[in-house]
Amino acid sequence: MTSTTSDLHSSVFTTETMAVPGGTETILRGGRHLFGLLPGAFAGIERIGVLGWGPQGRAQAQNLRDSLDGTGITVTVGLRPGSSSADDARAHGFTEADGTLGGWLDVAATSDLVILLIADAALAAHHREVFAVLKPGAVIGLSHGFLLGHLRATGGDFPPGHAVIAVCPKGMGDSVRRLYLQGVDVDGAGINSSIAVHADPDGRAGDVALGWSVALGSPYTFATTLRDEYLSDIVGERAILLGAVHGLVECLHRHFLLAGDDPVTAYERSCENVTGPIAATISRDGLSAVRAACADTAAFDRAYTAAYAPARDLVAEIYDEVADGTELRSVILAEQRLADRPLSRIGGTAMWRAGNEVRARRGTRDLAIDPLTAGLFVATMTAQVDELAARGHAWSEIVNESVIEAVDSLLPYMHARDIAHMVDHCSRTARLGTRRWGPRFQSAYEQVVLPAVDAPADTGLVEAFTANPVHQALAAAAKLRPAVDISVA
Amino acid sequence: MTSTTSDLHSSVFTTETMAVPGGTETILRGGRHLFGLLPGAFAGIERIGVLGWGPQGRAQAQNLRDSLDGTGITVTVGLRPGSSSADDARAHGFTEADGTLGGWLDVAATSDLVILLIADAALAAHHREVFAVLKPGAVIGLSHGFLLGHLRATGGDFPPGHAVIAVCPKGMGDSVRRLYLQGVDVDGAGINSSIAVHADPDGRAGDVALGWSVALGSPYTFATTLRDEYLSDIVGERAILLGAVHGLVECLHRHFLLAGDDPVTAYERSCENVTGPIAATISRDGLSAVRAACADTAAFDRAYTAAYAPARDLVAEIYDEVADGTELRSVILAEQRLADRPLSRIGGTAMWRAGNEVRARRGTRDLAIDPLTAGLFVATMTAQVDELAARGHAWSEIVNESVIEAVDSLLPYMHARDIAHMVDHCSRTARLGTRRWGPRFQSAYEQVVLPAVDAPADTGLVEAFTANPVHQALAAAAKLRPAVDISVA
Repeated sequence: MTSTTSDLHSSVFTTETMAVPGGTETILRGGRHLFGLLPGAFAGIERIGVLGWGPQGRAQAQNLRDSLDGTGITVTVGLRPGSSSADDARAHGFTEADGTLGGWLDVAATSDLVILLIADAALAAHHREVFAVLKPGAVIGLSHGFLLGHLRATGGDFPPGHAVIAVCPKGMGDSVRRLYLQGVDVDGAGINSSIAVHADPDGRAGDVALGWSVALGSPYTFATTLRDEYLSDIVGERAILLGAVHGLVECLHRHFLLAGDDPVTAYERSCENVTGPIAATISRDGLSAVRAACADTAAFDRAYTAAYAPARDLVAEIYDEVADGTELRSVILAEQRLADRPLSRIGGTAMWRAGNEVRARRGTRDLAIDPLTAGLFVATMTAQVDELAARGHAWSEIVNESVIEAVDSLLPYMHARDIAHMVDHCSRTARLGTRRWGPRFQSAYEQVVLPAVDAPADTGLVEAFTANPVHQALAAAAKLRPAVDISVA
Repeated sequence: MTSTTSDLHSSVFTTETMAVPGGTETILRGGRHLFGLLPGAFAGIERIGVLGWGPQGRAQAQNLRDSLDGTGITVTVGLRPGSSSADDARAHGFTEADGTLGGWLDVAATSDLVILLIADAALAAHHREVFAVLKPGAVIGLSHGFLLGHLRATGGDFPPGHAVIAVCPKGMGDSVRRLYLQGVDVDGAGINSSIAVHADPDGRAGDVALGWSVALGSPYTFATTLRDEYLSDIVGERAILLGAVHGLVECLHRHFLLAGDDPVTAYERSCENVTGPIAATISRDGLSAVRAACADTAAFDRAYTAAYAPARDLVAEIYDEVADGTELRSVILAEQRLADRPLSRIGGTAMWRAGNEVRARRGTRDLAIDPLTAGLFVATMTAQVDELAARGHAWSEIVNESVIEAVDSLLPYMHARDIAHMVDHCSRTARLGTRRWGPRFQSAYEQVVLPAVDAPADTGLVEAFTANPVHQALAAAAKLRPAVDISVA
C-alpha cells in the first residue's frame, strides 16, 4: 500500500489533536519520558543501520543510539569503503570492533531498519545496490523526499514488500544533535520532525516512524506524505531557508553601503539583523512581533508592501519547477558537470569580511531591528507560508518548513558562522538550489523591491499580514516545544 | 526526409566556400543583384503568408514584399482576429482591400509558404490549428527553432508531406528592416541568416529557404539544423546577447559606485562602455582589438582571467538545460503563471536613471574602453564561443550567434535605448530567459569574478585567447558583409 495522504496513527504512543487554521492535525508530542515505549514501536527491529556520516547521519546515529541504550536494539553506521568519515565515526564510538561500523552494503544487508542518509547524488547513483541487498521485510527509512523525486524522474520505484517511511527533522544535523543534548536537562528539547508512511505492507510502519522520530528527540511529530515533504523541503531551502536569505543580504549590504554606511554598520543592518534580532524575535514571540519591535512601523509596512508580491512570484516559480521535476533535472545535470569542475564558493564578496568585526563586538551593544531588512525578510517568509498554504500543505509542515526551521536551526547557525559559510557547507542539492535561486531573489529585491520601498504601504496587504493564520499555527506549534537555547557556539 | 545535418545546396544560386577553423563551410553571399533569381527560387510559390506582426513579422513581411516587387508573388500578413497590430500593418501598406491582410488561419490556408512569426507562447498553443488548414504541399517556414523544442517536449511533430524550413536572421526585427533599407545604397547590407531544411518532401525546400534569406537582405547565409539553431539561439540570448550583458552591467555599475565613482561615470564605465566603444571596436576590428585598445592591457588580462571560467561554467549550465528541455519547461510553466500575473519590469534600479545624462553628453567626449569591463565582457563572449565550439556548432553559427548579432544588432539598440529597456521589450521567451540567467551572471561576477580580479593573469589563458580560432572565423565572416552603420537613432 502506497500512501499519498498524510495520517498519523499509533498503537504504541498517545497522539494529540492540535488546532490549526481551518481544522485540526493529529500530532505526537515527544520527550524522553517516551523512550520506554521505543522497544514496542520498534517491535521486530533488532538492528538499525544508518548509512552515511554527513551532518544528519552523524546526529541521527548518535541520538538513536543514546535513546535506545539498554533496549538491545543496535545502531550501526554503514560507510562506503574508504570513506574519509570513518575516523570521525570511530571517534564518536561507532567501531568495527563492536560491530557498529561497517561497509554500507553489509550494514544494509543485515539491518531491519535501513536509514538512507548518504548524499543525494550518491543516493541517486547507488539506491538500486542498497535495495538489492535488503533483508526480506526490512524497512527503508529516508529523511527527506529527494529519492522519491529522483525515482519519479527516472521511472524507478521502491522495491515491493518493504515498508518505506520518512522521518524528516526540520533542522540541520548539527541542531538535531545539539538540541537533543539539551533535552537531557530540558525534557522535550529538540528539532520537530515530519513523518511520512509511503509504503506499509504489514501495518507496523507508522509506529516505526514515530519511534524513530521520538528517539531523535523531536518535540513534536506531524504527518505528511513523501511528496509533500519533498515539495516543501526543496522549495523551502531554495526560498526563505537559504536562497532568499542569501539573496536578501547580498542586496541589502550593498544597498546600505551605497546609502553611506560603513561596511560594519551595513553588515549589522543586513546580515546580522536577520540572523540576530529578527530570528530571535520570531523564535521567541512569532512573526508579528518583528513588526511590533520596529520603532518605525510605517517603514516596515512600506518594505513589506514592496516585497511581498515579487517574493510570492518567486516562491510560486520555485514551487512549479520543483513539482514539475525541472528543478531536480537541473540538479542531476549539475552533478554531471561537477564531476569535471568543482563548485565555486560564494563567500568571496567584501561583505563577509565585515562579519568577523561584527561578531567581535557582539554583546557590547543592543542591535535594533532595521525596518527595511525586517520588512523584506518577513514579507518573503510570509509569501512562502501563503504559497505553501495555497498549494494545500498541512499547517505543521508550513510553519516548520518556513519559520521554525529557519529561526531555530539555520539562522542561529548562520549567526555563528555567516550565511555564505552555511551555504558553502550544506548539502549539494541545497548548495545548487541556493546558487540557482539566491541570485533571483537578490535581483528581484534590487530591481523591483527597493525601487518601490518609498511608495505608500498597502493597508490591505498589511492587514492580511496581521490577520494571517500563520500566527495562530505558529503559536500552536510553539506550545509544543520547551524554550531552548538556539545559539550556536 | 527529416534533416539532422546542415547542408547548403542550390540549383538557383551560386554558393561559395568559406574557410573556417578546421575546414570549410558552404555559404551564399547575398545582395540585391540576386533578386532577379527569386522567382526561380520560389518556383511554385505564388503567395507567401507571414503570420504575426511582432518585430520579426513587421520586418520580414516588408523586406519580402519589397524584394519580390514586380515578380507577381504576393506577400500577405495574417493576424489573429481583433489583433491590435492590424492598424500598424495597414499603415505599412498591408490591407484587406488589396488582399494582403487577413485572418491568420485564412492566410495560412491560402499561402504556398506560411511563415510562422507569432509569439512563442501563441505558437505553442495554436500550431495545430495552423497545420490543420495548410494547402497540400505548402511550405512551413520558421525563424527560429522554438517550435521544434516545443514539439519534442510535448511529443508532437510537424505534419507529414510539408517541407519545413527555417530562415533565422541573426538580429532583431528592427535591425533586419533597418539594414535592409541601407542595402538600397550599400549592396549587401543586412543581417546574416542561418537556414535549416528540416523536412524536404519534394527537393525544393533548400532553394525556397535561400530565396527567403536573400529576399530578407542577408549579406550571407549559412546552413545549420533546426536543433542546432534552437540550441545556439536560446543559449545565446540567455548568455552574451542579453542575460550575461544585463547581469554584467548591474554588477559593474554598483562596483564602480562603491569604488567612489559618481553615477554617470559609473554608467559610462559599465553600460555605456559595453554598448559603445567595446561593441563598436568588435564590430569594426574583432575581439582581439578590444584588448589592444586597452591602455592597461595587464588589467584586461587579469579581468579576463578571473571571468573566463565562471562564465564558461554558466554557459555550459545554460546549454545543458536548453538541450535537456529543462529551460523550455520553465518557460511553459512561467507562461501559465503569467496568465494571472504580469511580468515585472527590470528597469527600476538607480543605474538606468544615469543613462539619460550619459546619452545627452555623448559626442562631447571620447570614452575610453575600461579594462575591467572589457575583460569581463570579452571573457564571457569568448566563453560562449568556446562552449558552442565544444558542442560541435558550425563556425558561422558560433560567430553570428555570439559576436555579430551582439555587436551589429543588439548592442547598438541597447546603446540607443539602454539594456533594461531592451530586455523589457524583447520576446517573452527571451525576457524570461534573461530574468532567469542574468542574475546568475551578476552573482558570479560579484561573488567569484570581482574578488579574483587582482590576482595575476593566467598567461596560458590569455595566450589561448590570442590564438583562439574565433578571430579567424570572425574575420572570414566580416569579409562577407559591407561596412554598415550599426547605430540606432
